[in-house]
Amino acid sequence: MPRIRLEDSSKIDNNVWLIEPSEAHHLLHVRRCKEGQKVEGLLGDRLVVLRLEVRDDKLLGHVEWEEECPPERSLWVLLGLTKAEAFELALRQVTECGATVIVPLRCERSVVRIDEKKEAAKMARWNSILKEATKQARAFRVPKLFPLVQVKDITTLALPAFKYGAFLDEGSVELLSCRPKDEAAIAIGPEGDWSDEEKKMLVEFDFKPVSLGARIMRAPTAAAVGTAVLSMLLEKG
Amino acid sequence: MPRIRLEDSSKIDNNVWLIEPSEAHHLLHVRRCKEGQKVEGLLGDRLVVLRLEVRDDKLLGHVEWEEECPPERSLWVLLGLTKAEAFELALRQVTECGATVIVPLRCERSVVRIDEKKEAAKMARWNSILKEATKQARAFRVPKLFPLVQVKDITTLALPAFKYGAFLDEGSVELLSCRPKDEAAIAIGPEGDWSDEEKKMLVEFDFKPVSLGARIMRAPTAAAVGTAVLSMLLEKG
Repeated sequence: MPRIRLEDSSKIDNNVWLIEPSEAHHLLHVRRCKEGQKVEGLLGDRLVVLRLEVRDDKLLGHVEWEEECPPERSLWVLLGLTKAEAFELALRQVTECGATVIVPLRCERSVVRIDEKKEAAKMARWNSILKEATKQARAFRVPKLFPLVQVKDITTLALPAFKYGAFLDEGSVELLSCRPKDEAAIAIGPEGDWSDEEKKMLVEFDFKPVSLGARIMRAPTAAAVGTAVLSMLLEKG
Repeated sequence: MPRIRLEDSSKIDNNVWLIEPSEAHHLLHVRRCKEGQKVEGLLGDRLVVLRLEVRDDKLLGHVEWEEECPPERSLWVLLGLTKAEAFELALRQVTECGATVIVPLRCERSVVRIDEKKEAAKMARWNSILKEATKQARAFRVPKLFPLVQVKDITTLALPAFKYGAFLDEGSVELLSCRPKDEAAIAIGPEGDWSDEEKKMLVEFDFKPVSLGARIMRAPTAAAVGTAVLSMLLEKG
């Protein structure tokens, strides 16, 4: 069923939504919906099934039923901190690709240093980026963003059983050939890559070294590709 | 073998290269190379195998032998024209992900219009972006960039046998389950997606409708993920 977000639409009656223009455009002109068709509307943690009606050039949605959004497979993305622009691009792209939990990592080779005073402002900005990307991807929920941690401290988190670390080293297995079940995590290093110490810790913490192919990608690209592939592997089940 | 680009390094002797600082950093601190180790240097269409030596805090490479770069599997990416920023991001990311040929498509829903007068300047800018991304990805060759074409005219190009079109429609097969051999092409629509007419033409031209997972990605993200997955599938052979 085609899906929209309802945050910017308005309820014009108890059971009728006036769908805002950009979501209406998406339904009518991108997804080619017809009058009478059912679509999913997402609002916070609620999923509203709507039947479409075109009235006076406006698109209305009649509520058929609503329920809580179904639970999602957890897909954790651990992201080495990079310069602001690259990190924000990575946040947006991993959200589009299906991340449900994001853990920013302070790495040895992270050029950017965010001290405690600045962290709250950064977290607020990052959360607003995640919210916007969630809207664009018409995803169920905004990914949960953890505060910054160091690699040595990630064992304090309740990580999924299937864990992968994107390594440049030869001998890594292809992510494409991995078979995670139900939930998984992927760790992507900063622009200068992991330090030897960090790689040792990740392996010790049961992260399997994986390769994303022969090319060297920038961190946001590697993050998007790793997340999307893991997401597709989890969908396959 | 770790790989660098030699464009910014200099030959200090007939058989000795002085490796420029950022590539030297990549070799020593990211790839953790040791003195005596062999690495690949790329320069235009040449591949130079170098043996490393550290001398007075500088990294030198002694030429062991050189040859032409090996032929690559063709990976064509047909990219629906989007707004400048998104399109340039897509160009950079598909280069990192292994595109060897890029065809910009004038689509019905492309918001941006580039007239003939502006096309030469755009092509020059796009080519410089591809060159830069090739350097960053330490790839063999800069992708070949075709001039803008319309979807109806892509049959004039010598496209690979395995062709995929990223469609939002239900019923598309997962790209992950496709098995292209030797060379392949993927077509990614503009932000407003393909028109019905364009989808009909692509199917007629033997593009198989594929899905990149349940989420709706922005065009650059879809382009990166589609290209990377296809690249990994071709590597698997």
